Amino acid sequence: MNARFNKEVDLAAPRKVIALSGGIGGAKLALGLKQVLPGGALTVIANTGDDFVHMGLHVSPDIDTLVYTLTGLNNAQAGWGRAGETWSFMAAVEALGGEAWFKLGDGDLAMHVLRTARLAGGEPLSAVTAEVCRALDVGATIVPMSDQPVRTMLRSDEGWLEFQDYFVRRQAAPVVHEIIYEGAAEAAPPPGLCELIAGDDVDAIVICPSNPLISVEPILAVPGIRGALATACAPVVAVSPIIAGRAVKGPTAKMLHELGFAADAATVMQRYAGLIDAFIADTSDIAALEALGSDVVLAGEDIMMTTLADRERVARCVFEVAGKARARKGTADRFSGVA
Amino acid sequence: MNARFNKEVDLAAPRKVIALSGGIGGAKLALGLKQVLPGGALTVIANTGDDFVHMGLHVSPDIDTLVYTLTGLNNAQAGWGRAGETWSFMAAVEALGGEAWFKLGDGDLAMHVLRTARLAGGEPLSAVTAEVCRALDVGATIVPMSDQPVRTMLRSDEGWLEFQDYFVRRQAAPVVHEIIYEGAAEAAPPPGLCELIAGDDVDAIVICPSNPLISVEPILAVPGIRGALATACAPVVAVSPIIAGRAVKGPTAKMLHELGFAADAATVMQRYAGLIDAFIADTSDIAALEALGSDVVLAGEDIMMTTLADRERVARCVFEVAGKARARKGTADRFSGVA
Repeated sequence: MNARFNKEVDLAAPRKVIALSGGIGGAKLALGLKQVLPGGALTVIANTGDDFVHMGLHVSPDIDTLVYTLTGLNNAQAGWGRAGETWSFMAAVEALGGEAWFKLGDGDLAMHVLRTARLAGGEPLSAVTAEVCRALDVGATIVPMSDQPVRTMLRSDEGWLEFQDYFVRRQAAPVVHEIIYEGAAEAAPPPGLCELIAGDDVDAIVICPSNPLISVEPILAVPGIRGALATACAPVVAVSPIIAGRAVKGPTAKMLHELGFAADAATVMQRYAGLIDAFIADTSDIAALEALGSDVVLAGEDIMMTTLADRERVARCVFEVAGKARARKGTADRFSGVA
Repeated sequence: MNARFNKEVDLAAPRKVIALSGGIGGAKLALGLKQVLPGGALTVIANTGDDFVHMGLHVSPDIDTLVYTLTGLNNAQAGWGRAGETWSFMAAVEALGGEAWFKLGDGDLAMHVLRTARLAGGEPLSAVTAEVCRALDVGATIVPMSDQPVRTMLRSDEGWLEFQDYFVRRQAAPVVHEIIYEGAAEAAPPPGLCELIAGDDVDAIVICPSNPLISVEPILAVPGIRGALATACAPVVAVSPIIAGRAVKGPTAKMLHELGFAADAATVMQRYAGLIDAFIADTSDIAALEALGSDVVLAGEDIMMTTLADRERVARCVFEVAGKARARKGTADRFSGVA
């Protein structure tokens, strides 16, 4: 391997880094990426398959989790919502006999109310989200996977369920037999997103440790995005959401199992076959992955992200691995003249 | 005068009482009426000329003030909104760069969000309001003056202003030259409201001490309501919102003056000419009214309602005066056989 290709992303002067993310788990790494990158270098493509209209309000849970996590407004204990939240709205909704199964915090409501009003006024979700990022000084660009509605629907032993119905109301209890991304075929990425992915000024594309089935694959189902990733100049690096056969959070392992897959890092890696140049798994899982003889760059790391330092460490690992993958890919990179 | 007609409303067994009300001042008397009447006897026709859509939410300030006042949820100090309210939503809206001039409390938001969702689902405002009254056990029926939008618009030295724009954003500072109730001509009372007003089972109809220009006359502008009041079997009793040339609260005196009227109880009484059978003014104003030689029943009372006892006292006064007005009107009443 030519040493001049074996470069990490130059964290002192990166160009662009793109991440694909769902909510909690993905947002942890997105925060790590933001922390180790200069302001503005990071673009996060957010899953909107979980979006739904609740009490007339357009709720985008993954966008909001990303916004709150990247700004430090998040409730780290709960993993969703805002820190220091108040709950007067929900109490009053219950008194009025309204639906109380989906908890909307008082401060959180501002996001939903303003988003709903702006969407109703004709602004696309991507423009509304960009405005939120500006107003809250997110320090990264968050782009919804599409301005058109795509809805993750789960066929379960209780019939077809919308995602929040399954995940929040039914607490992921139903057995899942099939997942579809309703509306995906008619959706399009926001203007410029595929061009951004394809650009030769992108240092790395990161698939965050989100649930592949309900966070990453809805993004990939939007026409154009999978192709843009598969043919991107930049190395695509995925981080496993599964550690030692268990999901760090959420129903990933349960869903994989119910759909007939082994709930392990190998399954996740195989689902991204053809898209990724590198895969980062927990050190405890790496031997099993190496035994598969995959041609992607494999890296073992302690990927349990508990502290901010963990997130930054995993982010640095991502960039190190991206450098290796870029070398393997053989893409001439901008550092070649420097080596 | 035949003594048998000189009956107060039988508070031990009243039939129906109807009140017309705007927000704060009117709601005070509405509460007094509710307190001295058995549960369910009171119907309040609420002004909706102040309604507006703010951040995509349908806000009905007078309905909400009535609901909160009649249930004791109201913030008595502020005169609007809920007691013990929190303000996380507004803080988050400001951080997001949203409009902050109209304060929506966190608990209060439940009313607007649920109302907006139900209206969007096709329910009329009267049905939504009835449901709120049931859920919160209001103990009275609150009926919007119309299910169709009527908007009080003010032509001012700053041009045409919507009511909330004038009243809240501009704090009633602009000089008002003209007031119109946009949409009133095309509006209709909710089903059954005119029949309710006309019914011979109504003991009294009360025009609460609300601003005639922006609270009561929008109600009267809805086709059918003025006529139903003018021809009602029940005596119509108005209570002055002006005491000794001053409005108890709000811009009533200022607006009357700007529109070329004397800001006194006589002006209010004259605006209701042809509609009312009795007028209750402050004891300090009654001599001036008597000097006018009006043919309505006049009554002087301490109508400044500070305490709950004040509200109940004025309510009792209303029913006493209603009895006198019924006698003057010569309507045979149901108590005639008892006398």
